[in-house]
Amino acid sequence: MSHSALKLVTIGGGSSYTPELIEGFIKRQDQLPIKEIWLVDIPEGEKKLQIVGAMAKRMVKAAGLDWTVHLTLDRREALKDADFVSTQFRVGLLEARVKDERIPGYYGMLGQETNGAGGIFKAFRTVPVILDIVKDMKELCPNAWLINFTNPSGMITEAIRTYGHWDKVIGLCNVPVNAMLSEPATIGKTREELTYKFAGIDHFHWHRVWDNTGREVTMDILKAMYAGRDGGLPKNIFDVQFFREQVDQMKMIPCAYHRYYYREEEMLKHSLDEWQGVGTRAQQVMQIEHELFQLYQDPNLDHKPAQLAQRGGAHYSDAACEAIASIYGDKHTHMVVSTLNQGAIPDLPEDHVVEVSAVISASGALPIAFGRFQPAERGWLQLMKNMELVIDEAAATGDYGLALQAFTMNPMITSGQRAKDMLDEMLVANEKDLPQFAGKIKALKAAGVTVHDEVAAHIDEHIGQI
Amino acid sequence: MSHSALKLVTIGGGSSYTPELIEGFIKRQDQLPIKEIWLVDIPEGEKKLQIVGAMAKRMVKAAGLDWTVHLTLDRREALKDADFVSTQFRVGLLEARVKDERIPGYYGMLGQETNGAGGIFKAFRTVPVILDIVKDMKELCPNAWLINFTNPSGMITEAIRTYGHWDKVIGLCNVPVNAMLSEPATIGKTREELTYKFAGIDHFHWHRVWDNTGREVTMDILKAMYAGRDGGLPKNIFDVQFFREQVDQMKMIPCAYHRYYYREEEMLKHSLDEWQGVGTRAQQVMQIEHELFQLYQDPNLDHKPAQLAQRGGAHYSDAACEAIASIYGDKHTHMVVSTLNQGAIPDLPEDHVVEVSAVISASGALPIAFGRFQPAERGWLQLMKNMELVIDEAAATGDYGLALQAFTMNPMITSGQRAKDMLDEMLVANEKDLPQFAGKIKALKAAGVTVHDEVAAHIDEHIGQI
Amino acid sequence: MSHSALKLVTIGGGSSYTPELIEGFIKRQDQLPIKEIWLVDIPEGEKKLQIVGAMAKRMVKAAGLDWTVHLTLDRREALKDADFVSTQFRVGLLEARVKDERIPGYYGMLGQETNGAGGIFKAFRTVPVILDIVKDMKELCPNAWLINFTNPSGMITEAIRTYGHWDKVIGLCNVPVNAMLSEPATIGKTREELTYKFAGIDHFHWHRVWDNTGREVTMDILKAMYAGRDGGLPKNIFDVQFFREQVDQMKMIPCAYHRYYYREEEMLKHSLDEWQGVGTRAQQVMQIEHELFQLYQDPNLDHKPAQLAQRGGAHYSDAACEAIASIYGDKHTHMVVSTLNQGAIPDLPEDHVVEVSAVISASGALPIAFGRFQPAERGWLQLMKNMELVIDEAAATGDYGLALQAFTMNPMITSGQRAKDMLDEMLVANEKDLPQFAGKIKALKAAGVTVHDEVAAHIDEHIGQI
Amino acid sequence: MSHSALKLVTIGGGSSYTPELIEGFIKRQDQLPIKEIWLVDIPEGEKKLQIVGAMAKRMVKAAGLDWTVHLTLDRREALKDADFVSTQFRVGLLEARVKDERIPGYYGMLGQETNGAGGIFKAFRTVPVILDIVKDMKELCPNAWLINFTNPSGMITEAIRTYGHWDKVIGLCNVPVNAMLSEPATIGKTREELTYKFAGIDHFHWHRVWDNTGREVTMDILKAMYAGRDGGLPKNIFDVQFFREQVDQMKMIPCAYHRYYYREEEMLKHSLDEWQGVGTRAQQVMQIEHELFQLYQDPNLDHKPAQLAQRGGAHYSDAACEAIASIYGDKHTHMVVSTLNQGAIPDLPEDHVVEVSAVISASGALPIAFGRFQPAERGWLQLMKNMELVIDEAAATGDYGLALQAFTMNPMITSGQRAKDMLDEMLVANEKDLPQFAGKIKALKAAGVTVHDEVAAHIDEHIGQI
Repeated sequence: MSHSALKLVTIGGGSSYTPELIEGFIKRQDQLPIKEIWLVDIPEGEKKLQIVGAMAKRMVKAAGLDWTVHLTLDRREALKDADFVSTQFRVGLLEARVKDERIPGYYGMLGQETNGAGGIFKAFRTVPVILDIVKDMKELCPNAWLINFTNPSGMITEAIRTYGHWDKVIGLCNVPVNAMLSEPATIGKTREELTYKFAGIDHFHWHRVWDNTGREVTMDILKAMYAGRDGGLPKNIFDVQFFREQVDQMKMIPCAYHRYYYREEEMLKHSLDEWQGVGTRAQQVMQIEHELFQLYQDPNLDHKPAQLAQRGGAHYSDAACEAIASIYGDKHTHMVVSTLNQGAIPDLPEDHVVEVSAVISASGALPIAFGRFQPAERGWLQLMKNMELVIDEAAATGDYGLALQAFTMNPMITSGQRAKDMLDEMLVANEKDLPQFAGKIKALKAAGVTVHDEVAAHIDEHIGQI
Repeated sequence: MSHSALKLVTIGGGSSYTPELIEGFIKRQDQLPIKEIWLVDIPEGEKKLQIVGAMAKRMVKAAGLDWTVHLTLDRREALKDADFVSTQFRVGLLEARVKDERIPGYYGMLGQETNGAGGIFKAFRTVPVILDIVKDMKELCPNAWLINFTNPSGMITEAIRTYGHWDKVIGLCNVPVNAMLSEPATIGKTREELTYKFAGIDHFHWHRVWDNTGREVTMDILKAMYAGRDGGLPKNIFDVQFFREQVDQMKMIPCAYHRYYYREEEMLKHSLDEWQGVGTRAQQVMQIEHELFQLYQDPNLDHKPAQLAQRGGAHYSDAACEAIASIYGDKHTHMVVSTLNQGAIPDLPEDHVVEVSAVISASGALPIAFGRFQPAERGWLQLMKNMELVIDEAAATGDYGLALQAFTMNPMITSGQRAKDMLDEMLVANEKDLPQFAGKIKALKAAGVTVHDEVAAHIDEHIGQI
Repeated sequence: MSHSALKLVTIGGGSSYTPELIEGFIKRQDQLPIKEIWLVDIPEGEKKLQIVGAMAKRMVKAAGLDWTVHLTLDRREALKDADFVSTQFRVGLLEARVKDERIPGYYGMLGQETNGAGGIFKAFRTVPVILDIVKDMKELCPNAWLINFTNPSGMITEAIRTYGHWDKVIGLCNVPVNAMLSEPATIGKTREELTYKFAGIDHFHWHRVWDNTGREVTMDILKAMYAGRDGGLPKNIFDVQFFREQVDQMKMIPCAYHRYYYREEEMLKHSLDEWQGVGTRAQQVMQIEHELFQLYQDPNLDHKPAQLAQRGGAHYSDAACEAIASIYGDKHTHMVVSTLNQGAIPDLPEDHVVEVSAVISASGALPIAFGRFQPAERGWLQLMKNMELVIDEAAATGDYGLALQAFTMNPMITSGQRAKDMLDEMLVANEKDLPQFAGKIKALKAAGVTVHDEVAAHIDEHIGQI
Repeated sequence: MSHSALKLVTIGGGSSYTPELIEGFIKRQDQLPIKEIWLVDIPEGEKKLQIVGAMAKRMVKAAGLDWTVHLTLDRREALKDADFVSTQFRVGLLEARVKDERIPGYYGMLGQETNGAGGIFKAFRTVPVILDIVKDMKELCPNAWLINFTNPSGMITEAIRTYGHWDKVIGLCNVPVNAMLSEPATIGKTREELTYKFAGIDHFHWHRVWDNTGREVTMDILKAMYAGRDGGLPKNIFDVQFFREQVDQMKMIPCAYHRYYYREEEMLKHSLDEWQGVGTRAQQVMQIEHELFQLYQDPNLDHKPAQLAQRGGAHYSDAACEAIASIYGDKHTHMVVSTLNQGAIPDLPEDHVVEVSAVISASGALPIAFGRFQPAERGWLQLMKNMELVIDEAAATGDYGLALQAFTMNPMITSGQRAKDMLDEMLVANEKDLPQFAGKIKALKAAGVTVHDEVAAHIDEHIGQI
């Protein structure tokens, strides 16, 4: 970045996370010569954008900074000559998340935002939009960096590279951030005293840790976790322990999301219990969001409220600020990011995206080579990365056969007729956000596929609670 | 083979399949200068060995051949100076198969011989025995070829190479044989008019087909199958169709066993229905076996009875005879075998076993390079091959953590507490056939793990019907 | 091939090898329902085409066949609806070969047709022409097979695939043919009794051999060769033995052309001796060609004359006929061909061309997986294949930097100023056959680069002797 | 490192470089709680050890430090409980280097310390000794780190890992250090403002550079070098420029040693000129060494003299100190080191040593993934790494066939009879330092192989000048 007056753009600026982002920038005011912050949203999000935008302005003012904060629905105006673009939007808003959780539940399968059928559909909805954004960026800010933390972050980053042909992108996730924030204390260390090596893909990675005497402390951390110390499980994941014998064998720390794969039975049960009872995660999030926006409307509030940390995505935005500061300042910080493999994980193709420990420099992420996995983790990882590639190709092309292949591969989906029916119903239910599947959806509807009344009622009920 | 008077040894000689094997040798009498056939079995199988051995002698005599047929319980005597050793034994007999099917059913999971928990335990029981056989062969017949068709054939072949360090082995499966026997007629062709390219691992492979004008006819065969023509589904697999859109996308023909993965819901339901109703496959097989041995006892029967074809393994033994004749005669026949990858499937490690189209020569199998798979099939295949490696390592070492990893990876097993309980119960239930897990089993029993009464009753009832 | 009346086209039909090709077709008259043979050449080759074409007609007539033989300068007329197209042309005629041999000699380096600077320039001249032919084929005979035996055969086949995007191609070389014709007798065997496994790239491969008892006889053949028995060294390669200790270590039989790399000193000396004395190989070939065409003009000659075997390329054309018969007849013959790797040689990229043992079917070549090489051969092979890729890219794009990179990589060229001067002089000398380098050549000439008088005189003298 | 009182051991402590090493430690006195420094040498080096050891003691004293400096010929005493062991010895002393340079010169080939035949023999002599050291370390200081800067550094590091099975090793080279010291100024930058990515193997790597705005400045540096600015060419390498068109095509900066491969003609000529005239590099080094030891004997000298920088190895020792400080202090410094690939260079096997940009932590080197090379560099690199593997295997086993293979692969050696004769003569000439080749050397001598009188005289003359 040669610019000394930075223009930062956040797409999905009306998100409840924006105060964390603003706080992150304020914390790094000495590192980032910010001139303008543009918060962009879509018409359906205008109200939230106004609320959170006003809050952002108060925060900047309270910090005594001369940055201008712009609120706009005009994405192209915002992108013009941007230096950094961060993305934190949700296509279809929380309503779509409700569908991702409610419909699978109806079919007796796990409804979740980035795993199972819900995760696949989140990718299907998001890929066309991100490719549009990239198209605009090529025209309006061809030298900008894109910092993606829209979920499913790894798949979106992959799509940006493979289908958008845009290289200046870093994908972020708060899961490694949480782990690195919480784990050191479990063994009486600080973050600075530990060296982390993460490898895998977004929401499906493992890590090993060494202390500052060179001793591997991976198993010490695991032991401490089993002794009850908090290892950084995000708030949005139900807590069920990994089997001790299994992690003792792998000698690595699985990520929080591995629960879905290593304890499928319990995670499914929890998901179905939520479905029938307390409400899905989307509903809980809506409640939290509702409260947050209540707070944000307070004209006296000019700093990030503590309640924001209760959302599963805490630290996401701060990670984005750190990535921006590291690139701009050529800081050579260690971060765990979604970036091009380049051999760092030799068990995966070197020309696709992985999530891995990297050094963040002005030229982007320099991934640290991890070496080969043992067979158990290698098999899982190769399945999951290839599934990502299938999902992305389906998302980019609208090919129904590929969508069905993705559903078949997904370990959270029991393949068979129910899975296919669920796929069809989800396509119909998400019609307005899936232009690439328009032809297939039309055919499905003509063949009588609809959203079941029970599901529709569920969805309406939940959306009504927003 | 420089020998002009061949000594052939079959371990598990008391199998009901032996008549097919003998018939196969008789058919190839001009290609194989056989002097002795040794049928070996264990004490528990002596009665069957005597029955089927007498039958084998009648068959040889009826064919006017001067071969001597030896029946023995002394494996080492049989192996001495053998030229070819074929293996078709079942450790734990059908009783073990009953357990493989009954216990998972109790946990609501698929009980099957080579898939799911049953397949894993079949490997656990078989690997120590096959490694013992290889040890004997190194001493007694170091130049012999080992033709393995003991299931799970791919994993056993892998264990023979990786843990037995024995290279002269070919693993066989009748699934590709069945496909190549049945498919040509679906498009009005003969086998000779088609070129097959198979690739994958045992019971998890795909194939493509070309006719003698060079045109690919893969999709023609699939179309014919969807129009109702028999494509060679083995008798032991429940028939549920693959989704047309899925195979149209992959543009390859999945193997019969892919049903377990592509139509998991239906296969599980069928398995549980059998469990609760008509009896599992093991029970059906016992009935067939019972009838076969009744037939074999007829002193006038001197040819393979037609009823044998009803067992799922038909053509297995004939494939073994063809492999032996191809090696001995340097025939350069096309066969689909489990052999060292050597790059034929670049998506898998080149130093492990795959199942692939090969040219069978006196020097062994020459695998035909298949090239890369598309992401969907690549992901599946990499998961499954790595799972095989985990299972084999667990089987060779008795490492409980690895056994748990294998259970977690297996797509037919829902990971979680139930899976772990099932693993523990199966370990205890198979105690006598799992010396490598002796320590763990002892600990489990000390901790109160038992075979549930309901399961034990089921097992007893089924075994009682043999 | 569904056609029952084949149209065969040979580009470079005026070649002295054409009688071998015609003889090869006549030998296979029962396998190939030939209707028309088209011999195509360029205006400069018209005289030869008429001579050899008349001879071809006499041969067909003498065989009592009703095939029509067409002689034409109109390539597009010939290609229209062709079933098989074989290529055996030499861009720039033997005059170009004189340059390939004379100019390097002037710089004290090896002058040879497919190795060193000469081989690189042969590729530079040939690639643009073959890409033109492929362009015509896409339009005029999109279902035809292209059987390339224009040298450097491997690089041309690679260019056809990588830059021509034409998949139905098989590249041929007579080096493996010669080896398999001559070696069996050295150990008292016939070809049918041996199994060959070749792997590498054109003119740079190794092979191993097994007999019909499965015993590897590679070292027996090497021993016999060292005892003086002819292992099939082509006539155009100076005979200097490989060091026994080296081949004993590699335990494979190197190809004839490995002499250039394993005995560089002697091969260079021989080349320079020829340069100064008896004349280069081109000159000798011209003499042989002259005599052959004298013979061909004899109106009574209606069969291939024995003298043709003295040319280094003997059996090339016969291999082409066999490839055509194998594809047309779906014969599943073992041949060594240049085809897509697909993993057969895991040490090289699977999406590029290698020369390897393959089964030739109607659907093309099915390569046999060879497995990994040991480090010494792996290093050599990876260098040489990558050099081929650099040469092809330079040939396809006219990039001077790449040409210089190729010269630097080539083990027959001592990198440095002399090498660069040689590159420049060869570019200028080959101007009329290198349209892709036109701009650079113009600049070189403007900068004063010319063909040295001494070289020019040499060239003229040699060409004058044709 | 948990020790708070470090014991550092340097094998080859009598080297003229030791003052740089001591200076490096003194500079880092705040980072390293050194208690003891042990300088170890062999009896032949005792005199030098005493001189340089006394000097080291004066330096430590002048710095006001309480470190004890031990001088010993007892390697095992020194290694006992060591924390860091650095190796900078030269088996056979400079006399051996004279042979490495003189004998090839006699055969008209390049005589040089780490390239060509000399480099191969340096590895042959060093590998047995380093494996002995590793054997001692396993017994006496199993937790120590081995910092190797004995040349050929990459091959020695590879041997330590592959044949010594010792993982805690980092190989160092001053070539990247020199480049990073000199290049920034060519474009008006400081080292801190640039991000380097090196990849390849020791003495055969390339690098790319980015500035702190993220812009790649690789070509700017090259441009500046061509404009005459010093890019850090080590003193021991003759300066001949790379061809501009070649580096413009590769878009990377080759290392200083690439001159031997990209400008072979000129480097060979320079080597032969030295051989016939001014004396080889060994002779020059002896002169410099002679002068250095004269200086070191001055009882008043207590700091590193400026003249030391004239040796080609300047900065080697400082790099060793930095590596030690980075490991001990878990500094996460960027260094270019020889370490396990782990996928960082996907074009090479992941389980062998490469030289690559890495982050140096307490747990060792974390290599930064570089991604695939373009074909030209890939081919070169694969040749050279495989040659290293062949050399190391020959060095570890004493296999003559492998030694011949290595000579044949080496681009600085023209394969053929002369090369073989040179190999034989060098084996005989180095007899006392090559125990692994004892049998072969005996046979060679019995067959009459001797060191030629002319060569022997040359060697004597040069050694006499020491």
